Amino acid sequence: MQYPSQIIENSVNELSRFPGIGKKTALRLVLHLIKQEPVIITNLAAAISALHEKLNFCKQCGNVSDLDLCGICSDENRSDTILCVVEDLRDVMAIESTAQFKGKYHILSGLISPMDGIGPENLRIAELEERLLKSKPEEIILALSATIEGDTTAFYLNRKLAAFGLKVSTLSKGIAIGGELEYADEITLGRALLQRIPYGV
Amino acid sequence: MQYPSQIIENSVNELSRFPGIGKKTALRLVLHLIKQEPVIITNLAAAISALHEKLNFCKQCGNVSDLDLCGICSDENRSDTILCVVEDLRDVMAIESTAQFKGKYHILSGLISPMDGIGPENLRIAELEERLLKSKPEEIILALSATIEGDTTAFYLNRKLAAFGLKVSTLSKGIAIGGELEYADEITLGRALLQRIPYGV
Repeated sequence: MQYPSQIIENSVNELSRFPGIGKKTALRLVLHLIKQEPVIITNLAAAISALHEKLNFCKQCGNVSDLDLCGICSDENRSDTILCVVEDLRDVMAIESTAQFKGKYHILSGLISPMDGIGPENLRIAELEERLLKSKPEEIILALSATIEGDTTAFYLNRKLAAFGLKVSTLSKGIAIGGELEYADEITLGRALLQRIPYGV
Repeated sequence: MQYPSQIIENSVNELSRFPGIGKKTALRLVLHLIKQEPVIITNLAAAISALHEKLNFCKQCGNVSDLDLCGICSDENRSDTILCVVEDLRDVMAIESTAQFKGKYHILSGLISPMDGIGPENLRIAELEERLLKSKPEEIILALSATIEGDTTAFYLNRKLAAFGLKVSTLSKGIAIGGELEYADEITLGRALLQRIPYGV
């Protein structure tokens, strides 16, 4: 494509590095931006710069944090006996919003995915083992997505963690609450039948 | 939503100002960014800043341009007798890629859309009239989208331009080349029948 200006072309190229954003969408976003007040553009550029210049990660769990130890890791009301292993901070936010978990987290920063060239050595698994040696929780919850990558990572972690002799659990699978049976996919429904639980629990 | 860091929250808020990008998508983009090399983040921020700091518009047609007069307006091989009125620079790029047009352009910077609060006074219509008084082309092509907003704007411009006594044309509507008849929508197909042309033209 022939862009009318090098500045437009640069912005399109940079924005189209995002996953799911191609050149056409990037051009649409750039055209939107140049119609905005200058302050909007400046704020966006500053917010993006800050991601590189000011962002800090929790030394313990790997979550994004303004301090060396994040709010969850330094919270004395949260238990150290149960550790929830998740893919990234979106999962921490999702689990936190349930208000059902009072332990601590460990962020893997991804899932094992050979197709994308991501192996166990690219994840924060060494940090997890180091942490287990120090804090010795009773239980680890592998709260990973119910996808091939999530299952692979859970399988790998379960074997890796066997040496520590702690309880390893995972999230229950089944039909969604509020979901209608006829719209549940057959694999989920089959799993929900196999793993049925006593009524009233 | 509870974000783990003010920096993340800022970036999510700024990115979700884009049309079609909500808070969840913005968070996904931010998480993608913070996994990248710092130079990628810096380049993106710089490219966005440049949109405000360095971008210039052609004084004549309104296209984005590095100079005061864009490459098309200053091209002596292009005719001044035919002027193509378009919504924005994407349309210029689309028409240029056909290599079928050797006249000049006028960019409206939008379409009349009362639902979005955009009236004729928000478009570059006054500039168009001023330009017509000076350059007196023979024909104006209203190359606007075949949507309600495009049709409304074309209708408005056609009446407004009547005073100038020049030929006003628009793009032909019909079935797409390479398109199968059975998949053409009924309105387009009906229009193509009504506006049928002699075979071989």
